[in-house]
Amino acid sequence: MRNLLLPEIQALLKEKRLDVLKEFCEESHPADVADALEGLDPEDISQILSLVSAERAAEIFGHIQDHQQVKFADAVDAKTVAGLVQEMDPDDSADLLRELDESDAAEILRHVRKGDREDVKLIGSYPEDTAGAIMTTEFASLREDMTVDEALESLRREAPDKETIYTIYVVDSGGRLTGVVSLKDLILAAPTKRVSDIAERDVISMSADADQADVAKKMQDYDFLAMPIVDRSRKLLGIVTFDDVMDVMRDEATEDMYYLASLNTDERVFTNPLKSVRLRAPWLLVNLGTAILAAFTVSLFESTIAKYVGLAVMMPIVAGMGGNAGAQSLTVIVRGLALGEVSIHGAWRALMKEIGVGFLNGAINGAVMGMIAGVWFKNFWLGLIMFASMIINLVIAGLFGALVPLVLRTLRLDPALGSSIFVTTATDVGGFFVFLGLSTLLIGHLV
Amino acid sequence: MRNLLLPEIQALLKEKRLDVLKEFCEESHPADVADALEGLDPEDISQILSLVSAERAAEIFGHIQDHQQVKFADAVDAKTVAGLVQEMDPDDSADLLRELDESDAAEILRHVRKGDREDVKLIGSYPEDTAGAIMTTEFASLREDMTVDEALESLRREAPDKETIYTIYVVDSGGRLTGVVSLKDLILAAPTKRVSDIAERDVISMSADADQADVAKKMQDYDFLAMPIVDRSRKLLGIVTFDDVMDVMRDEATEDMYYLASLNTDERVFTNPLKSVRLRAPWLLVNLGTAILAAFTVSLFESTIAKYVGLAVMMPIVAGMGGNAGAQSLTVIVRGLALGEVSIHGAWRALMKEIGVGFLNGAINGAVMGMIAGVWFKNFWLGLIMFASMIINLVIAGLFGALVPLVLRTLRLDPALGSSIFVTTATDVGGFFVFLGLSTLLIGHLV
Repeated sequence: MRNLLLPEIQALLKEKRLDVLKEFCEESHPADVADALEGLDPEDISQILSLVSAERAAEIFGHIQDHQQVKFADAVDAKTVAGLVQEMDPDDSADLLRELDESDAAEILRHVRKGDREDVKLIGSYPEDTAGAIMTTEFASLREDMTVDEALESLRREAPDKETIYTIYVVDSGGRLTGVVSLKDLILAAPTKRVSDIAERDVISMSADADQADVAKKMQDYDFLAMPIVDRSRKLLGIVTFDDVMDVMRDEATEDMYYLASLNTDERVFTNPLKSVRLRAPWLLVNLGTAILAAFTVSLFESTIAKYVGLAVMMPIVAGMGGNAGAQSLTVIVRGLALGEVSIHGAWRALMKEIGVGFLNGAINGAVMGMIAGVWFKNFWLGLIMFASMIINLVIAGLFGALVPLVLRTLRLDPALGSSIFVTTATDVGGFFVFLGLSTLLIGHLV
Repeated sequence: MRNLLLPEIQALLKEKRLDVLKEFCEESHPADVADALEGLDPEDISQILSLVSAERAAEIFGHIQDHQQVKFADAVDAKTVAGLVQEMDPDDSADLLRELDESDAAEILRHVRKGDREDVKLIGSYPEDTAGAIMTTEFASLREDMTVDEALESLRREAPDKETIYTIYVVDSGGRLTGVVSLKDLILAAPTKRVSDIAERDVISMSADADQADVAKKMQDYDFLAMPIVDRSRKLLGIVTFDDVMDVMRDEATEDMYYLASLNTDERVFTNPLKSVRLRAPWLLVNLGTAILAAFTVSLFESTIAKYVGLAVMMPIVAGMGGNAGAQSLTVIVRGLALGEVSIHGAWRALMKEIGVGFLNGAINGAVMGMIAGVWFKNFWLGLIMFASMIINLVIAGLFGALVPLVLRTLRLDPALGSSIFVTTATDVGGFFVFLGLSTLLIGHLV
């Protein structure tokens, strides 16, 4: 059936046409149903979800946006939430509970059946942004002494509860990961062969403490559907699946873009305006502090400017161009770190390159601007000062644009967070200081 | 076996220890082998790839970075490249040929066997960044009158040549898409059931002209392993698989970040420095043009500044804060458009919100800065001018930060491309004009 829109759903609710709503929830893709339900009150969502099986309800609820899930969980009773939590993918459940008040989460967990509760607790015990926090415990595994036929039979029994049965892990009696086999290989193999004969022994796995971004990068490199997550003794704890990795990739890219623009990652286009103000204001105030620092630099040269006001006209150009060039270097390095093109290894070469590029682009833009300034103010020396300042400030831009994210990474901090503030401060203060400083030294030639 | 490093490979080549190299190519993950080979000369890569089966060689070659693939294809003979091209995933092959000279690509295609040649040509016929250009024609399909047992038998025969057999498409006699069934469902079903009984009828598919970013978004929403791509008559042309979508997500995020920082997407951290200069210089020169426009705005008020030099100290603050606030609005909107949080529908609300947020943050930062300026220069009126200019310029920042990407999207252009230049121009020119204009009007109170 076609997708329903919010007003249609509201009308159907009002007219108590629950049969139509039930059909919609059962027939449409859970993501589409979730999309349609998001504008409703928690009570209405709860009523609609109660029309379908617990499993289906959880599938739909799992597709509702995170902050809407939290709003729902805060509004309805713990038992209802528990009914959804125990049917959802355990990583999604852990994610939701992490966002709730600790006492609410505990109350909900009390109503979750034992096996699921333990899974959710295990996943919830790993810090956010680690492999452990996004893995699922619902993976398919086999013993290596099974025949292919027995393996397929066992998968048939287990499949309905597993998140994927396309990559199957082979474990020993201690639950330690010893191999991996794809369903494709099982289907292709002779039924009497042993799992041990067709399993790949060289299994790539990652630790539960691994950074989720690293898991995503590895899975993308290897085109993996799922990545097995193990503890120190190689015991298989769970798997991270491709759909979670897509979410990680999206969120990590958003985070980097937001950090470069001094934004809080909690913000979205339609975040409540007052909340947006609250989230952006601290960043702007920090930027204001650095702007005052730049203004203070200018104030050191007030008497020079008073002698030759043309300097006030030219001075934003040097600082502004430094800001642009700094943003270029910073973005190339931040993205390069995220994509694994550069690491601490290679940092020196990257730094030297950015300084060199800054020098050459400084020379190009400095030559153009030097000539324009010389002609505009009919003053050769102003042109020369412009040329020299542009080169120096674009070298500063390259230096700080590369250095700041590389140092943050070395300190195990996010290379994007706050970096643009450092870089802009360097290019603003540096640009004003160099341009006005040179002008002060050469003031005799200017006036 | 463990991964080899570049110097080890070079040493093994020199000592003609080809058996070790062969084992490395066969036993390690193709992505790791590709990684290790990337620093070698094309001739050495060619020699090493010739040690393994054509299939394995293509798998490894497919993991080599795009620009390295091009370098290789330019260096070795057409027949060698053709041998790889016909074994690679056809979308990867089409991608490579797209990057080569037309005559070289034609020469290579002549050596590719007929069926593969047609697949590559079909995919190559779609513009870059469309679903058609990233799909593979190696999908698994079934007729609906088959039994589950027959279906599994047919998959067993076809599987080795298919990119995935986990999502299988059901087609009618004309090749039109009529359903979809997962391998999981096939495994779980009774062997005598018909495919038509277990297939999902409501198949979500996309057109070959669809934007690759939209395909990625849909697949992420639906957690799809593969998305079927159809022509106007619903004939199944190919599928886009999750691994290609991960690449699309990565590339689209890089593109947006790069565009916001005025960078060319061809650049990487270790791009040759001279090439980097060439790629960045045009953007910097455009920025220089807008900086001159801002300087021209300042020059209109030269006589005001001459009367009160403190204005030269304060003026970068208003413009700079506008630039920061503009970057915040711009980034939220650009990312929101990419993630589908906002579209043309909703644009008005987003615009109004950004203007409102700009006003309030302008008031907060303006109040702080107004007080500082008033105390610093012991001048109440300067503080007041600062306060008012900050509000006006942060409203300009919100207005242009939201308007520019939304207008670009409406014009079917990339909302990130060039947008930061427009926004910075607006906040620079606007900031200087408002601050210096107000100062000119109130100059009697300042001196």
